[in-house]
Amino acid sequence: MAGILHRTLRLKTALRHLSPHSTLSSTNTARPSHLHLCSPVLLTNSWQFGACCRKLHAGADGQKQSPAAAPERLPFSRVTEEDLDFFKKLLPARTITDPDLLESTNVDWLKSVRGSSEVLLRPQTTEEVSQILRYCNSRNLAVNTQGGNTGLVGGSVPVYDEIILSTALMNNIMSFDSISGILTCQAGCVLENLSLYLEEKDYIMPLDLGAKGSCHIGGNVATNAGGLRLLRYGSLHGTVLGLEVVLADGRVLDCLATLRKDNTGYDLKQLFIGSEGTLGVITAVSVLCPRKPKSVNVVFLGCETFEQLLKTFQLCRGMLGEILSAYEFLDSECMRLLNTHLKLSNPISDCPFYVVIETSGSDPTHDGEKLHNFLEEAMTSSLVTDGTVATEDSKIKALWSMRERVTEALTHDGFTYKYDISLPVERIYQLVTDMREHLGDRAKSVVGYGHVGDGNLHLNITSPAKDPALLAAIEPFVYEWTAGCQGSISAEHGLGLKKRNYIYYSKPSQAVALMGNIKAMLDPKGILNPYKTLPDNLK
Amino acid sequence: MAGILHRTLRLKTALRHLSPHSTLSSTNTARPSHLHLCSPVLLTNSWQFGACCRKLHAGADGQKQSPAAAPERLPFSRVTEEDLDFFKKLLPARTITDPDLLESTNVDWLKSVRGSSEVLLRPQTTEEVSQILRYCNSRNLAVNTQGGNTGLVGGSVPVYDEIILSTALMNNIMSFDSISGILTCQAGCVLENLSLYLEEKDYIMPLDLGAKGSCHIGGNVATNAGGLRLLRYGSLHGTVLGLEVVLADGRVLDCLATLRKDNTGYDLKQLFIGSEGTLGVITAVSVLCPRKPKSVNVVFLGCETFEQLLKTFQLCRGMLGEILSAYEFLDSECMRLLNTHLKLSNPISDCPFYVVIETSGSDPTHDGEKLHNFLEEAMTSSLVTDGTVATEDSKIKALWSMRERVTEALTHDGFTYKYDISLPVERIYQLVTDMREHLGDRAKSVVGYGHVGDGNLHLNITSPAKDPALLAAIEPFVYEWTAGCQGSISAEHGLGLKKRNYIYYSKPSQAVALMGNIKAMLDPKGILNPYKTLPDNLK
Repeated sequence: MAGILHRTLRLKTALRHLSPHSTLSSTNTARPSHLHLCSPVLLTNSWQFGACCRKLHAGADGQKQSPAAAPERLPFSRVTEEDLDFFKKLLPARTITDPDLLESTNVDWLKSVRGSSEVLLRPQTTEEVSQILRYCNSRNLAVNTQGGNTGLVGGSVPVYDEIILSTALMNNIMSFDSISGILTCQAGCVLENLSLYLEEKDYIMPLDLGAKGSCHIGGNVATNAGGLRLLRYGSLHGTVLGLEVVLADGRVLDCLATLRKDNTGYDLKQLFIGSEGTLGVITAVSVLCPRKPKSVNVVFLGCETFEQLLKTFQLCRGMLGEILSAYEFLDSECMRLLNTHLKLSNPISDCPFYVVIETSGSDPTHDGEKLHNFLEEAMTSSLVTDGTVATEDSKIKALWSMRERVTEALTHDGFTYKYDISLPVERIYQLVTDMREHLGDRAKSVVGYGHVGDGNLHLNITSPAKDPALLAAIEPFVYEWTAGCQGSISAEHGLGLKKRNYIYYSKPSQAVALMGNIKAMLDPKGILNPYKTLPDNLK
Repeated sequence: MAGILHRTLRLKTALRHLSPHSTLSSTNTARPSHLHLCSPVLLTNSWQFGACCRKLHAGADGQKQSPAAAPERLPFSRVTEEDLDFFKKLLPARTITDPDLLESTNVDWLKSVRGSSEVLLRPQTTEEVSQILRYCNSRNLAVNTQGGNTGLVGGSVPVYDEIILSTALMNNIMSFDSISGILTCQAGCVLENLSLYLEEKDYIMPLDLGAKGSCHIGGNVATNAGGLRLLRYGSLHGTVLGLEVVLADGRVLDCLATLRKDNTGYDLKQLFIGSEGTLGVITAVSVLCPRKPKSVNVVFLGCETFEQLLKTFQLCRGMLGEILSAYEFLDSECMRLLNTHLKLSNPISDCPFYVVIETSGSDPTHDGEKLHNFLEEAMTSSLVTDGTVATEDSKIKALWSMRERVTEALTHDGFTYKYDISLPVERIYQLVTDMREHLGDRAKSVVGYGHVGDGNLHLNITSPAKDPALLAAIEPFVYEWTAGCQGSISAEHGLGLKKRNYIYYSKPSQAVALMGNIKAMLDPKGILNPYKTLPDNLK
């Protein structure tokens, strides 16, 4: 009883901070803006790993071939001296062949996929990209387009010796219309740089990712990146207004409209959003940007059951309405890992479930009042057991880190099997519970966290070391479970190399066949990002 | 001076109604929910009009062939008795051949296009649609899919004797998830019925149109309908989560996901959004629905210049922020027509420009305060000359009617040449000014109104009667002017039959050619909604 009173008092104290006249934070929350390369996560299906692994990709360790393993190299041409001469003439000083310089572009961030490309091209203009692709297509040379190389499914690096086409030097902002909020820029602009540019003009980007310090807007669009603002501003299919794309044969497709409305024919740009570089090379993007919010608040709450957590979400959508910008969750197992491995202490009392809610709006007083009323109702109706409110920048950051550092905590817990699942929102935690029961004591930890607002669960399972028997118990169980709920086996990470062969768990064969037709139409020789997105058995 | 004081006082009086504790309207604005069939507008390019006009479409009146005129009938098969037997067996009592019953489905709402179809099919299920298309494809019979038949570009009716496939009986709501707000329904559900269904559950549809009492959700998606909520909730490319589509050969493409996030391969459903029934027949839709706002307010303001109107928009975006749901405008010429033809009196003093602003939010008091602060600032900085605020339902309706009844007023002014143009927002009124100057006294009225928030201008030009010389002065001037600003010659109406050949003003030939490839891939015989969307000269 004393505990309950204590918890209630703490939340009441927090609520006082939200009185209409209190000073609320007027800045955006600052989250880790750069990728941390320490302690790379070893993924489910990591292959033999070495400087030259052309022959080692496909199950060379003697284990049963995983659907995630790379297929045999396709019969593309190999780069010759004549090819290099062409590239060096086109891109003097921007045709890289030094193996040391190529090293970081051949390996993905998770260090789970390594290609063996011997050429990195760094074009600056659309015309250069066009000439590169025209040449590669005529020579049957495969091309891997690379942005910030922050992908998690092996889509952003070569699998064999594909030429790496980097957008890093295509980083000019082309225009910004301060009346409509429409930004147009080259594909290689780093997301954080765009955010900083826009903030000065009182706007923000409609998406925000942990990888923002490295990722490129072109890569964001090519992978249909989700991230932390999707709940509020929607997906890139809605916010991207135009694209310029170079097709496999070098033709430039100009769909770089800067209009909110344009119903003159099929919306071709949509094809390239989320196509992971397999249909064309995105060279420029126009995007609709929201105004910068004048106030941001974060609360951290505890719930006894996942059902209460969902009821709290409902209440929150009704009472916070238009200012709700994030509704994230983690379970008590995540909290245990944060405590154990990162020494982060729980800002509230122990609960089975924790929620991070962010609001962003145009009036600090109004936002504070809405939050106050919501929290009072959530407490009164016993949906929430305990909670704390952040009204200062440092505390906002601290609360966000409880959600954002779960991935890091997991890397310290052991070998991690990671799944990024989309489900009807009322089902998302059932998968964690069922997986825990299914695995019993075979797993070290089974944890769930993610974006409740988007129905997106990050399910992670750790074991002391890589464990093929455990993997066999997880898969295909996790995919079958997801398919049984009409869920998606990749909510936001894409398919890339690693998940391409699992596509049928989320898409009917009719749809996959049509994808193949589109690929064949736009890239008949298949030179663009081969071995990615589409399954091996596609006819 | 007295006038200025009077105006200022009126606005101040209005502002008092918005004090934090005043009672604000808590219902949605009610706009005309049914299409009015009185006084059909005669469009730019209306053809000979009669019960049988197969041979009359193509410039039979001896005038120079317009790019909007129908091309020659393509060599599709004609419906035989055997075909009718098949359909009657498949759809007993739902295969309509009575000419009287076919009459309304052969003619568009504007009565500007008349087909001569002799068969209307009314399937109830996806399987029936599949069987119809499989049969038609094998027999080379052309098909015109029809929803509510409310389109404005001749896309929703047959041009010759295409079989009409109506979605009217496919009107079941399949599911609604009250946690996520995701609605799944058959394509023939009437938009207003969906809205009423959702309102009971405290949600709304993300789109709202004047035609909501008749239009079908499948048609909305097929035409990528814009409407009155686009500024707030974005386009259907963002809010539609899934589609079920029957392809030309009868295959069912199941992309009917009900997930906010799904990055497993290409987002195929996007292809069909805005394809105007030329790539497949949409049979079911899932859509993400916003919560119903708890308060709605409308203000009507006057500005001296269009520049001030744009500055007011900027101010409004900043100060109303997340509750802004509409920013519409009309010019003084529109007001003159409303006064003259509909006897609607100006609710404020005469100004060159008028603005209708709508807010919708979750807290009536907060919304009122935001609006109050914005109006005070707009007045103080002299951006706004005069204004009035609606806090009661009847006044909200009256203010909205000033914007919504402009179309009706135009029909009384004479023969109307109508254009639906998308432009960079800072240019939208320049086109009206330039057109006025360009036409001089050749036109009776040249008026501009539309969705400032979306950069969408409705430019209308009237003359006492149909006037080929005037038309020749308007076109291609209007299209060239639009193309010069990288605008869209069809912001929200689509291309349909009437605008298909103007596509090159807004899309490069490379893009149009790719559209042709997609059409050929999905509908190789071209049986789906022929003569629409794609230009005649497409190879």
